[in-house]
Amino acid sequence: MYTNGTHKPNETQLIPYASRLKEGRALAQDVWSIYNAANLPPDCINLGQGYMNFAPPVWIREAATEALKQVATNHYSHPKGRLRLRHAIKDFYGPQLGRDLDVETEILVTSGANEGEYSVFVAFLEPGDEVIMFEPFFDQYLASITFNSGVPIYVPLHPLTDKDKPTSNDWVIDFDELRRRAITPRTKMIIVNTPHNPVGKVFTREELEKIADLAKEHNLLVMADEVYDSLVFDGKEHVRIATLPGMWERTVTVGSAGKLFAATGWRVGWLIGPSYIIYPTLAATTRIVFCSNSPLQEASAVGLEQARERGFVDQQRREYEERRAILTEGFDRLGMKYTMPEGSYFVLLDVSRLQWPDDYPFPQSVMGRGRDFMACWFIAMEIGVSSIPVSEFYCEEHCIIGENYARFAFCKDADTLKRAVERLQELAKFLKN
Amino acid sequence: MYTNGTHKPNETQLIPYASRLKEGRALAQDVWSIYNAANLPPDCINLGQGYMNFAPPVWIREAATEALKQVATNHYSHPKGRLRLRHAIKDFYGPQLGRDLDVETEILVTSGANEGEYSVFVAFLEPGDEVIMFEPFFDQYLASITFNSGVPIYVPLHPLTDKDKPTSNDWVIDFDELRRRAITPRTKMIIVNTPHNPVGKVFTREELEKIADLAKEHNLLVMADEVYDSLVFDGKEHVRIATLPGMWERTVTVGSAGKLFAATGWRVGWLIGPSYIIYPTLAATTRIVFCSNSPLQEASAVGLEQARERGFVDQQRREYEERRAILTEGFDRLGMKYTMPEGSYFVLLDVSRLQWPDDYPFPQSVMGRGRDFMACWFIAMEIGVSSIPVSEFYCEEHCIIGENYARFAFCKDADTLKRAVERLQELAKFLKN
Ligand SMILES: Cc1ncc(COP(=O)(O)O)c(C=O)c1O
Ligand SMILES: Cc1ncc(COP(=O)(O)O)c(C=O)c1O
Repeated sequence: MYTNGTHKPNETQLIPYASRLKEGRALAQDVWSIYNAANLPPDCINLGQGYMNFAPPVWIREAATEALKQVATNHYSHPKGRLRLRHAIKDFYGPQLGRDLDVETEILVTSGANEGEYSVFVAFLEPGDEVIMFEPFFDQYLASITFNSGVPIYVPLHPLTDKDKPTSNDWVIDFDELRRRAITPRTKMIIVNTPHNPVGKVFTREELEKIADLAKEHNLLVMADEVYDSLVFDGKEHVRIATLPGMWERTVTVGSAGKLFAATGWRVGWLIGPSYIIYPTLAATTRIVFCSNSPLQEASAVGLEQARERGFVDQQRREYEERRAILTEGFDRLGMKYTMPEGSYFVLLDVSRLQWPDDYPFPQSVMGRGRDFMACWFIAMEIGVSSIPVSEFYCEEHCIIGENYARFAFCKDADTLKRAVERLQELAKFLKN
Repeated sequence: MYTNGTHKPNETQLIPYASRLKEGRALAQDVWSIYNAANLPPDCINLGQGYMNFAPPVWIREAATEALKQVATNHYSHPKGRLRLRHAIKDFYGPQLGRDLDVETEILVTSGANEGEYSVFVAFLEPGDEVIMFEPFFDQYLASITFNSGVPIYVPLHPLTDKDKPTSNDWVIDFDELRRRAITPRTKMIIVNTPHNPVGKVFTREELEKIADLAKEHNLLVMADEVYDSLVFDGKEHVRIATLPGMWERTVTVGSAGKLFAATGWRVGWLIGPSYIIYPTLAATTRIVFCSNSPLQEASAVGLEQARERGFVDQQRREYEERRAILTEGFDRLGMKYTMPEGSYFVLLDVSRLQWPDDYPFPQSVMGRGRDFMACWFIAMEIGVSSIPVSEFYCEEHCIIGENYARFAFCKDADTLKRAVERLQELAKFLKN
């Protein structure tokens, strides 16, 4: 996402900040600030940040405009979310989850998926509780856990590097590592992000069943971060872990209007789960934000209500498949390896063959980090396409795995992607064999 | 605000919620759920909840519609807030604070004032840190503090009950009590809410100077909750504690587009303070919500940019003065005592003379609480006007002070208030001398 690492205060710090900020890289300079537009060439094409360069569908924006015309939809909503939106979530997700969802107790609207996840941590983490996440991980998890006195535990997805044309399915879990090295008596929660950011992996039924078995064996809460659930490609099946036997009871499924409707700035998300999970999480979100914004909740309700009859999700998926094709065919043309994503909107480019001049002037912020930090900087400065280094999404111990990859987001219109691909061809002269 | 106390889960609780939820009344049935429309007569006039029954100004809503038409204003904003809004905040508040505010380091946009305050607690509270608040307090503070391992410390405002026509200025601080009983070596923060919810008190310069002296003496962080700053009546001066000598350095001032623009459901608020306070708070809000919603940030920017030239704040204040007059003249006619508010949009009605039949059928949720709980229930059921019992906003030890008051919100259009006033006349027959 974005910078929080710039502009350190220079006044005397009369009142010290809380020590919880010393963990979870909360105050560190992050990739979003290093690879920020402000630091890059002015005409750099931004494939770094994961938001669209197009607007949400007109008919959903019109629903927002309608909501702005009313009174109630400009004022506080119930902290559970607007009833209309909760009904729309029930109708949209209920069939997918195979459940008749209770709008009063099993659905919670949040201020983006992000705040929903934060609220779950507030509601469930005791000091020292361990939360397992797969690397590379969505970077917001980290401080959200440590702020709430939890301890992040890292389990890497291992890329099968011998593959010639790897897909996101070739990033695999070492279940022995998960079971033996990660799970302890203090494990409270496991985060399963599928489709996965940044790998694009859509976890298989078999993988999810194994995770589910461990969750049941060790009584873990599963946070199923499925914000990219509408972006699963090539007819691949998106399995929801909450639908596996015995898993509804211990799973909270996370969704996002931002990802579903190309409206990342609307800050509307939702949680679905059993009432004993939703209930304390409601208490948390009520204090944190009170409620999510009302007009865009109402518009999101219209979006969910009409998505099916308009064929919106299918059409959007096809558009993303085209976007993915533009980018990956560009990499093919260039002869660089990458991970073909089965879902989400990221491609990991293998930058291990990229070679820059020994005396290339890298800035301080990039030196001493992984090789990928230099690769992303070099690509942005030399050919004007920005991406994000993947080692940032690993703990220090494992960051070597990420060092070979740069993340390119394809949530951009086809023209932009085509221009980026043209520029990327210039990388040819910097490739070693 | 609203319920979070209904619909307790009935499934087995496989994974226990965090013990932080056992404090701060986080899971208790609150007043918002007891005096919820669903429990009251269908045609009950709602003067309970503090949101408007009218929409935000048309020109600001039009700005929101414009923002919905663009691309960038539908996507993630910088976690600091949209630059245009930060500039508008600088231009609007800078002169009032007597400072040339730095939009990069001294202003932070949040998801409502509420989430801004929560973020300050995340950023500054260490386990056991004490936070002083004046009673009656805005109920969201409580769990927001305990969720972040802080300890609430209560200092009551004392109503001078011998006054015939009390104003909110007749609710006074016992500075001896504040200094000697409340401040300890663990005091980290003091919340000063002016204009005050629910008393309507606009703290005097003298009072603020005394608080400031204590804050400087004991190195306290001051949270100046000034969300009602645009609603100060009768030409009374609203003093910002951040402008007192030596106070900018230790004060974070809180504002709300919801209160300023009659848009409580927009969830846009802001914090203003020195960079060493804003910096860790930015780190907190970035993890909690990432950013506030973009279209309504943009519209709030337009609101602040044009408020002055349109004479908006003055006109709105006059409208609220009229609304206040309708309600208070109704109480005068009825011969009931109340606190005339100098600011905010609440009137505290003194219900000590109200007498209901001994066998009146109160529900369980109201029994065993303060007398005010019964009074509010009785008024809502018998004459169809809802209000909120004030003892809810006190700690148990002090709640007796609040038991004589019911809070009526006048953020409603004149017609609604007139109808409420007509109904309220019926209370005459239930008054003892
Ligand atoms: C894996 C994952 N989870 C959650 C989120 C947050 O979604 P939202 O924008 O709805 O807060 C993102 C956004 O990038 C994400 O990639
Ligand atoms: C004293 C006080 N502070 C803060 C808030 C929260 O404001 P917002 O709606 O911007 O979150 C309120 C709302 O009622 C309030 O009364």
